[in-house]
Amino acid sequence: MASLNVKDLPRPAPKALAGAIEALAARFGNRLVTSQAVREQHAHTTTWLRRQPPDAVVMAQETKDIQDVVRICAKHRVPVIAFGTGTSLEGQVNAPAGGVCIDLRDMNRVLSVHAEDLDCVIEPGVTRKALNEYLRDQGLFFPIDPGADASIGGMASTRASGTNAVRYGTIRDNVLALKVVRGDGEIISTGTRARKSSAGYDLTHLFIGAEGTLGIISEITLKLRGIPETMAAAACSFATVEDACKATILAIQTGIPVARIELLNAAQVHACNLYSKLTLPETPLLLLEFHGTEAEVAAQSQSFAEIANDCDARGFEWTTRPEDRTRLWQARHDAYWAARALRPGTEALTSDVCVPISRLAECVVETERDLEAIGMASPIVGHVGDGNFHVLLFCDVNDADEIRRVEGFLDRLVRRALAMDGTCTGEHGIGQGKQKYLETELGPEAVAAMRALKAALDPQNIFNPGKIVPVD
Amino acid sequence: MASLNVKDLPRPAPKALAGAIEALAARFGNRLVTSQAVREQHAHTTTWLRRQPPDAVVMAQETKDIQDVVRICAKHRVPVIAFGTGTSLEGQVNAPAGGVCIDLRDMNRVLSVHAEDLDCVIEPGVTRKALNEYLRDQGLFFPIDPGADASIGGMASTRASGTNAVRYGTIRDNVLALKVVRGDGEIISTGTRARKSSAGYDLTHLFIGAEGTLGIISEITLKLRGIPETMAAAACSFATVEDACKATILAIQTGIPVARIELLNAAQVHACNLYSKLTLPETPLLLLEFHGTEAEVAAQSQSFAEIANDCDARGFEWTTRPEDRTRLWQARHDAYWAARALRPGTEALTSDVCVPISRLAECVVETERDLEAIGMASPIVGHVGDGNFHVLLFCDVNDADEIRRVEGFLDRLVRRALAMDGTCTGEHGIGQGKQKYLETELGPEAVAAMRALKAALDPQNIFNPGKIVPVD
Repeated sequence: MASLNVKDLPRPAPKALAGAIEALAARFGNRLVTSQAVREQHAHTTTWLRRQPPDAVVMAQETKDIQDVVRICAKHRVPVIAFGTGTSLEGQVNAPAGGVCIDLRDMNRVLSVHAEDLDCVIEPGVTRKALNEYLRDQGLFFPIDPGADASIGGMASTRASGTNAVRYGTIRDNVLALKVVRGDGEIISTGTRARKSSAGYDLTHLFIGAEGTLGIISEITLKLRGIPETMAAAACSFATVEDACKATILAIQTGIPVARIELLNAAQVHACNLYSKLTLPETPLLLLEFHGTEAEVAAQSQSFAEIANDCDARGFEWTTRPEDRTRLWQARHDAYWAARALRPGTEALTSDVCVPISRLAECVVETERDLEAIGMASPIVGHVGDGNFHVLLFCDVNDADEIRRVEGFLDRLVRRALAMDGTCTGEHGIGQGKQKYLETELGPEAVAAMRALKAALDPQNIFNPGKIVPVD
Repeated sequence: MASLNVKDLPRPAPKALAGAIEALAARFGNRLVTSQAVREQHAHTTTWLRRQPPDAVVMAQETKDIQDVVRICAKHRVPVIAFGTGTSLEGQVNAPAGGVCIDLRDMNRVLSVHAEDLDCVIEPGVTRKALNEYLRDQGLFFPIDPGADASIGGMASTRASGTNAVRYGTIRDNVLALKVVRGDGEIISTGTRARKSSAGYDLTHLFIGAEGTLGIISEITLKLRGIPETMAAAACSFATVEDACKATILAIQTGIPVARIELLNAAQVHACNLYSKLTLPETPLLLLEFHGTEAEVAAQSQSFAEIANDCDARGFEWTTRPEDRTRLWQARHDAYWAARALRPGTEALTSDVCVPISRLAECVVETERDLEAIGMASPIVGHVGDGNFHVLLFCDVNDADEIRRVEGFLDRLVRRALAMDGTCTGEHGIGQGKQKYLETELGPEAVAAMRALKAALDPQNIFNPGKIVPVD
């Protein structure tokens, strides 16, 4: 029952905690919040994991605030947990050892945009939608779209990706440099605005995906793209998941630069039909987006149509009209809420795995069979160009039997992906929920290396303790 | 004089070294080589740095060999230096503290190719040309091309890139996973064949660019691409470096997916004309390559021709015929030898920096002026789509005054790039030659973090000591 019942860890001595909170109150006044409701909110995650609220929340407004919180907490050896929008899925913002949450939502300034260099420098609380709003007039955009309007600091910390990754890469491929507040409150600068560098160890990529366990990101330099001249959407139904995956593999192999290619299984299409009042055939569906000049987009969709046809697609609908694009993609954007509406009142949790694309069909089909066997017709959506997919599960957390069935399923899902040379998480991260699989996936040597890195950069173990590789 | 006169570091105790070599001789027989000539060869770098040969060389044939060398050396606290093809440029294979070189050239097997997944698993001694030869029949290629036929283990270790990076990324973007032999001879596995993962700290990218200072890479999983249907080459002369850079910026901003876009300055074109018997106008030249379908390539080159015209280009020549492509690119491929032929008999060294593309013209023009001021009309070639360029310098190392002038120039080159928010090396690495700039570029906090990482993963300091961040 490890997934659901997260462990509490040893808390700071009451006197140490009181000392830290007193110092924080003196420094931050009413920007230090200790009310039950606010603490609970900051332990909220879109998961079934039990909430473990921090002892206090500081609303940070600038880098100096992060530095001071870290210095005060380090002095008293109290944990520090960074918080963006709380949309993480594996318990990344829980506080199993208590401590102080730094809420970064007000650090939401775009510090500079360099249009000629296609980059910008931002604070970590900027959300992806706010950034794209800001950039639109300059004809630029930031392509990473994990669905939720997450903060970019949070996306960097969980190594997020999403629907556009097949063309534009994950956040890992789109961060040029970071500033990170380390344990003594000083700032590590990991890079410059140069597009590439061979100068020393790759600190940028070490902090990306570290879930705030090695320091707090205070500034991010991002790569940007020019907004494509034309965007077209397409939808295509298939008789089987295998056919849909085969079409995906052929598209990737042929080198069609699809911007998005998303699989919805029959259960998800059913949920979307109900929720969004659509009449899509309730069979596996691929939703696609093409970006480029008008001619490029036409050529791409023509090439894909031929592939789809060879893979026995049932119709291929495509459009460049914005309103039709929106209509087609609405189902995908609402997929999570549509799925949740299938069984209101229960906890919903989503888990993700990622496998080499040649194994994807097999992995999805076996997963569907497994769902059938436990009596759950759960929706599956996949960023299939990357071999990454999500299962949304429902669980009545008062029903011990259902909990057991869901946990058994999650365990088999991960082991199935690992057996196919895949990973236990393509984009949600390890957090608390997937710690037990890290060693299964990479072996004890990799986990030992991760522990050594954690000890090297956070010797006091104050940064988000109990995540990724807990230190005893 | 730090660049030229590399420091010797404390060597292992003679008894320890003798013990290690005795154990290695017993294990490896005539695959352990201690002759002066072979040791000298393994300290050879294409640079002016003084050679610091290892005490012995082991010709490794399989992973077990690397493990055994590391175990024996660790037991006796003797340094271990990995060697691929010896084409590194900043003294990465020198042995300033002596020790044992592991020559990986015979670990050159392609272990598996997964065409559907566009990936392969190889040993570190496979060279990029050998790999592409191997893949060609399957319609696949590995796009990273640093010029030299380097080993892919070496390319991973120096975080190499080259002419194709503007479209396909650097080696960093094209490695999915590594196996790395750690200090006790056990193997760290950093990832799976999944296209993306959020599972724990990014060990893969920590070892990429670590120059063998954190462990020895024994296996590499690479991303591959389908060979494009059509490739076209183009050449375009400009009156000024500014015009050439302006055209480059516009091409990148417009989103033309150029596969290569290389700048040759007038001095380099002059060298190429002499060496390759060409009659190119001796003004700044852009060489381009376009990849895609026939229609895509035609559209890309048409778009670029319009941009070039707006930037006062003097003629735009393009072709899809293989023999014409070869002719156009021959000049670029021979650039290094053409440049060296300008002043035979002297040492030649090449240094690289990388700046945001908006500062590139300014940086190249100031560098050209600096070269004039020290009386050297040195060739410059640039991967200008990335803002990265190289200067080739000649130096009579018996002329103290010339050494001083060259060292002064190199210092100003790096400081100029850093002042423009660039990096002291885009793709050659830190090695020994650029250590003094790491702190100037990133600050003492980043260097302290790097030292902490080195101590965490190589507590005995046996892996390539004296490189990147020397430990006292």
